[in-house]
Order: sequence, then C-alpha cells, then structure tokens
Amino acid sequence: MLTACNKEEGTSGTTGRELQHIIMSEVMGRLVIQQCLSASLKLPGADGKDPEHVDIGRGMVVFVCFLDKASEETVEKLTKHIINIRLCEDDSGRRVSICDIQGDILIIPQATLGGKLKGKAMQYHMNVDKTLGEALYHRLCQGVRTAIEAVSSGNVKCGVYGARQILSTDTNGPYTHIVEV
Amino acid sequence: MLTACNKEEGTSGTTGRELQHIIMSEVMGRLVIQQCLSASLKLPGADGKDPEHVDIGRGMVVFVCFLDKASEETVEKLTKHIINIRLCEDDSGRRVSICDIQGDILIIPQATLGGKLKGKAMQYHMNVDKTLGEALYHRLCQGVRTAIEAVSSGNVKCGVYGARQILSTDTNGPYTHIVEV
Repeated sequence: MLTACNKEEGTSGTTGRELQHIIMSEVMGRLVIQQCLSASLKLPGADGKDPEHVDIGRGMVVFVCFLDKASEETVEKLTKHIINIRLCEDDSGRRVSICDIQGDILIIPQATLGGKLKGKAMQYHMNVDKTLGEALYHRLCQGVRTAIEAVSSGNVKCGVYGARQILSTDTNGPYTHIVEV
Repeated sequence: MLTACNKEEGTSGTTGRELQHIIMSEVMGRLVIQQCLSASLKLPGADGKDPEHVDIGRGMVVFVCFLDKASEETVEKLTKHIINIRLCEDDSGRRVSICDIQGDILIIPQATLGGKLKGKAMQYHMNVDKTLGEALYHRLCQGVRTAIEAVSSGNVKCGVYGARQILSTDTNGPYTHIVEV
C-alpha cells in the first residue's frame, strides 16, 4: 500500500498530523539515547528511607517508552538495538557499539516520550497501560543486562518505573538519537 | 488519502520501516525537550581562546534538528511550540508554559536527531544541508528570544551550530518529550 500513501498524496490528501498519528500507531517502543561521560539518577527511598543514587560512568543514557501495542517482541528488538547500535566513539573517533567501549548503560523509564502534542498540551493516550509497561521495562533491563554481561565489563543500571527520575548528566557531546521499533 | 493508508493496511501492506520513512519525509523539524533545574553548555573558544560556558537555571533544554524540507515556516511553528507548550511545572504541580514560570531556555543544535537507524548504524541523509540548517537555527534562536523577552524575564541561550555540544544538566525529572512539525 506504499504507492497509495506516497509522499505526494501524503502532502495533499493527508495532513502531517494525520500521518503522525498513523505512524505513532505503528510504533511500539521508542528510545531516546544520549551519550554521557557520567550520569547519576536519584531513586526514591523505599519505605521512607533516604533516596538512593545509581551512577554510571562513560556510556549511554537510554530513555524508553512503550506504546500501546508493545509486546515481548518489542523488548527483544529494543534490546538488540541498545546492544548493537554504533553511537559510541572509540579513541580514534570511530562510531562503535557500547560493548566495544565496555561502556555503561543507564536505562530510564520515560512515559512522556509517548506524548503527542495537541494544542499547547501533550497527551499520552497512546502509551501502554502501566502494569504491562512496568513488566516490559523490567524485561528490557534484564535483557540488556544479560547481553552486556556476556560480552563486556560495562554496567547496566536502571530507574524505577513510575517514579520521578531525578537525573544529572555530564556529556562530551550528547549526540541525542531517537530509535523507534 | 487517509482511508487508503489506514492502520490495517499499514500493518499488512506497508512495513513499519516504510511508514517511518514516509512520515520522516513529512517531518521538517524535530525537537527533543527536557526540563532542567540547571544546564551548562561549553562552547568552543573562538580563535584558539579558552572555551566559554553558557548557563541557564530552571527551564528547558531544547535540542533541535531541521530536516530536508525545512523552511522559515518550520522555524515559526517550532518557535510557537517552544513558547507555548505546557511542559513546565508550577509550584502547585500544574503543567504550564516556560513563560508562565519565567523559565530559561537553552537551544542546542542537534543534527543527530535527524538520524535513521539502518542496520547497526545511524544515517543522516534526511537532514537539511548545513548552510540552510545554520541559518534556520539562528532564526529559531532569534525568534524564541524575541518572543520570550516580550513576556518573561527568562533567558534564552544558544549553542554553536556544527560544534560539539558539551553539556551538563541537572533535572528534577527530565520529562523528555519529542515534538515534530
């Protein structure tokens, strides 16, 4: 159906907003990936205890959001991309994977990435429901950790689903990238 | 043409990747917006001088990328969204605009946002050419600054187009959002 939905018809018959809705209904998982020299995430303390921090060194901060058709397959695809994507710089300036630089990964749940602008406000109707989203987030963290530990000395750290993510980062060029599956 | 390109046909006749290509060819400007308590961007020093820093306090870090059909109209739309979008929290936790909290804005050029994953690498074929991109970036900074100065005591700071953006941020929940026009 690509021919019935090509660029020209997209411009004349379908507005950018409509097309955006169509593609968003096809997207099941969305990542924003930023390179970092270090990052620190403050986690809410359990049972009234003091907040904890999870810290990483050189590597990537990965913000993740699952949309409403997300499944185990989405987790598998995202895991593969996080492990393999060549966004890190090695000492000679070449773009390599996070494993190649033995870098750390901080995976932060970020439901706001599923937002869609309507007027002046963002709406989040396309996000996965909270229970499934939390399960998929834990599966993603587990999958990435297992894959990294098998081949790299890098650390994989995670946030807390549904909590406010208080983050400090230090970058050497954030190189912000969006990846959708 | 929306009926010829609906969700069902999108799923069966058009792959997610093809749809992604279609929608990306309709996107002219892309923002990633993150709330911050403070942010500091190190700029390369001119003529071998020491690097300079631009700093902002509470407000938003806005990463921007122009794609290959971007124009003055794109700049106008993005300017309007940056000024009006209700992503900032006021003291009562309500989402309001950056003007409502008299917040600062740091606008960072980020060509990597135009990247499209192919295999394990990102490709940037859809980005605007560098000369036009730089001109549009300056227009955006100027437009946002003029609009903010008219109604708010907030500061608007900018990066350097084409330079490596070395950034430190401190957030109280980064609330990462993507906005496309």
